Amino acid sequence: MTDNLNPQPRSYHMTPDEFRKYGRAVVDWIADYYERVESLPVLSRVHPGEIRAKLPAEPPQQGEPFEQMLADVDRLIMPGITHWQSPNFFAFFPSNSSGPAVLGELLSAGLGVQGMLWATSPACTELETHVMDWLVDMLGLPEKFKSTSAGGGVIQDTASNSALTAVLAARERATGWAGNERGLDGRLVAYASTQAHSSIEKAVKIAGLGRANLRLIDVDETFAMRPDLLARQIAADRQAGLVPCFVSATIGTTSSNAMDPIRRIGEICRAENLWFHVDAAMSGTAALCPEFRYTHDGLELADSYCFNPHKWMFTNFDCDCFFVADRAALIRTFSIMPEYLRNKATESGAVIDYRDWHVQLGRRFRALKLWFVIRHYGVEGLRHHVRQHVELAQRFATWVREDERFELAAPAPLNLVCFRHQAGDEFNRKLLEALNNSGRLYLTHTTLGGRYTLRMVVGSTYTEARHVEAAWAQIQATASQLA
Amino acid sequence: MTDNLNPQPRSYHMTPDEFRKYGRAVVDWIADYYERVESLPVLSRVHPGEIRAKLPAEPPQQGEPFEQMLADVDRLIMPGITHWQSPNFFAFFPSNSSGPAVLGELLSAGLGVQGMLWATSPACTELETHVMDWLVDMLGLPEKFKSTSAGGGVIQDTASNSALTAVLAARERATGWAGNERGLDGRLVAYASTQAHSSIEKAVKIAGLGRANLRLIDVDETFAMRPDLLARQIAADRQAGLVPCFVSATIGTTSSNAMDPIRRIGEICRAENLWFHVDAAMSGTAALCPEFRYTHDGLELADSYCFNPHKWMFTNFDCDCFFVADRAALIRTFSIMPEYLRNKATESGAVIDYRDWHVQLGRRFRALKLWFVIRHYGVEGLRHHVRQHVELAQRFATWVREDERFELAAPAPLNLVCFRHQAGDEFNRKLLEALNNSGRLYLTHTTLGGRYTLRMVVGSTYTEARHVEAAWAQIQATASQLA
Repeated sequence: MTDNLNPQPRSYHMTPDEFRKYGRAVVDWIADYYERVESLPVLSRVHPGEIRAKLPAEPPQQGEPFEQMLADVDRLIMPGITHWQSPNFFAFFPSNSSGPAVLGELLSAGLGVQGMLWATSPACTELETHVMDWLVDMLGLPEKFKSTSAGGGVIQDTASNSALTAVLAARERATGWAGNERGLDGRLVAYASTQAHSSIEKAVKIAGLGRANLRLIDVDETFAMRPDLLARQIAADRQAGLVPCFVSATIGTTSSNAMDPIRRIGEICRAENLWFHVDAAMSGTAALCPEFRYTHDGLELADSYCFNPHKWMFTNFDCDCFFVADRAALIRTFSIMPEYLRNKATESGAVIDYRDWHVQLGRRFRALKLWFVIRHYGVEGLRHHVRQHVELAQRFATWVREDERFELAAPAPLNLVCFRHQAGDEFNRKLLEALNNSGRLYLTHTTLGGRYTLRMVVGSTYTEARHVEAAWAQIQATASQLA
Repeated sequence: MTDNLNPQPRSYHMTPDEFRKYGRAVVDWIADYYERVESLPVLSRVHPGEIRAKLPAEPPQQGEPFEQMLADVDRLIMPGITHWQSPNFFAFFPSNSSGPAVLGELLSAGLGVQGMLWATSPACTELETHVMDWLVDMLGLPEKFKSTSAGGGVIQDTASNSALTAVLAARERATGWAGNERGLDGRLVAYASTQAHSSIEKAVKIAGLGRANLRLIDVDETFAMRPDLLARQIAADRQAGLVPCFVSATIGTTSSNAMDPIRRIGEICRAENLWFHVDAAMSGTAALCPEFRYTHDGLELADSYCFNPHKWMFTNFDCDCFFVADRAALIRTFSIMPEYLRNKATESGAVIDYRDWHVQLGRRFRALKLWFVIRHYGVEGLRHHVRQHVELAQRFATWVREDERFELAAPAPLNLVCFRHQAGDEFNRKLLEALNNSGRLYLTHTTLGGRYTLRMVVGSTYTEARHVEAAWAQIQATASQLA
């Protein structure tokens, strides 16, 4: 076919009928994957460079058939996949997904709308605001985080960006918005515990406060921040002529799921007029269940809060839910208004333009998948699975306690169990390596009190009792072999 | 079914067979959508609050059937959608998508892997590195942006985050990494043209430099930055004891597609030892075609560069490609290493861990869709469609020139045509409103030289000659009616 013979312009686009055909193939591929993922080695076994070595050095000049691409996913890509959706994935924090989430993501990709302004797709903004308000009720969060109050919620990509957003709003509030305008003077100070996620340090660096101005407050025997030491440090910094501006506390630290005392920290922040951010990236989901809401006690004292449905609420990455009590402070921190974005709806003041709620301008329609997940499961279904994960983790903790070779390394309030063999760091390191090399499960580690510690998180969508039982059997057997 | 009667734990998850069924329904929904999107009013006609008012105030306690959710997308969501994938979408910059991209996104969501470390899914990192190296060849970018040199590429979500990343690396290089450590002193200065995207100002504020330390350099009659004024300003700032550190130039500004003189600006940056970032968010894609690479002349002088396949290269949002010449400077700016992320592969130094290349920690497998797009179209197919878009825009520019009521408001080097009716700002404002209210097309505006200007961008995937012809006919007819 040449342009001479055919007056129609040549098109290389996939036709709607081809999309139907190949779309079904990909849907079936994913369904097959979920049926077989349990049998695959969880941790990829490739060596550095092994995947790239099989890829052609040059990009294709001519298009290739879709069938070939899908076959290459199996042939070239799958050996390099670590299976985060495996029921035997117990590493890091989960990044669990589900059918309704994946289909919501698909629909969002198909629609391909931008939600940077209300006007660029009103439904994208309004569904997001609505679902975020639903979540306030679902998790029992303070009413001030609702859009119908002075606050509101926005979907961010990650808790790292939520932390950055919070640090920036704190920085600007503390400087009367002079940081944005004139830059910084090196006197602002931020606070978190020694157990806080690395994203807090990253945010403090990005925002120009300097790592030296991030105070890492020591923790108690449960690895929770000590409010007395926080108060003392704030006083010392004020004494030194510095300007405390931001405190981040964690509901469920990454290392050990430690619970910072939100109420007591919040009281200090209110007394000292500091921006109080609460990071509940994984454990926030537990607040779906009334019996776990004690972890959020005092949250009404917070200025901002985030949790990640993309970790433990069956919503595929990325979906971090960030709430603020004072949306005006947030918007003032991020607002820009070039001529090419001006529009009547914005100028009316009657709408939310989410571009002023975070770093990015462009944003996709992520509320769709969250809406699908909440409606598919219902609050009841979500609670059921969260409770099941917690119960399985608690059973695991019981088995650890009952085996005299092992010990718990930290309290296990929810679905993360930190444990170690009593034979010491080197033994535990070998144990972890042997377990992960087996392909039957994947665990990661941390250090607690200076000691090498294994972490077992129960939070993958398809993890059932039998997987946790098999994991413990494998841990016991491997420990015996190594001993 | 109760737990008493059935010993199997109750599950609310979508089964693989349900996923097959509903997945097909969503695939068909999207194919149907692409078949009918042309007939829908491009700009949503809802009023603020109209979508929310139809949504239930309370989240559902029990799960709902998927069929109901999909029906509600039609009933509740679609009226609030502005159709970015319509062939009659000529607003902002495009955010074009395609079949292979959507299916790559679907597969990525199904796999649900995290690419924060090489070890957390080696294929996610290695495919990304590989495809980014391909793009260096495809666009004729400097070899120094390849991973096989001292540089490399990474997929970011948006050009806003690429700009922030570049500003931060510039800040740290200029301070000998003291900004990260001790914070800032208000003396760093950044430069861009008056026509630079608002994301540069946002990045400078976030990084703590202060908006007052962003110099907006005046432009020439083509709206391109004047290098002589840049050099003069840098000298004045040095004279005043300030520390120039960063220059951002644009290949294809958002307002008018102006082309900053990359080589001359680059020479100044090299002489002055400033970090030189080049933002080619939309127009970078044009470099697929050798005849448009003149816009990138001098790019070998840049420290960093970005363009967005999610704008004009048929890859659904988000997919911004960010390249650096000195990856060590970038990594040193962002690196964090908590114990729970330590692993052998990282410590071997043989792998890339992309978490150290940007703000976020978690990241999804975005290289998959880019790989699918490049392989589906081939370089030849991508070039064909880019050339077609440019040709259609150039035809439109010719029609504007030939109609004495209208004038071009700026050079139209590629696929964006800025134009206005000669009856003045108020008339043009009314013209735009009438056009957008018709539902038959969607244009946005800017101001150039203080005058209200309409923008016509040809870049949507399914835009053909007949859509551009119909748009021009509609513009002419509406202008006649209003006159």
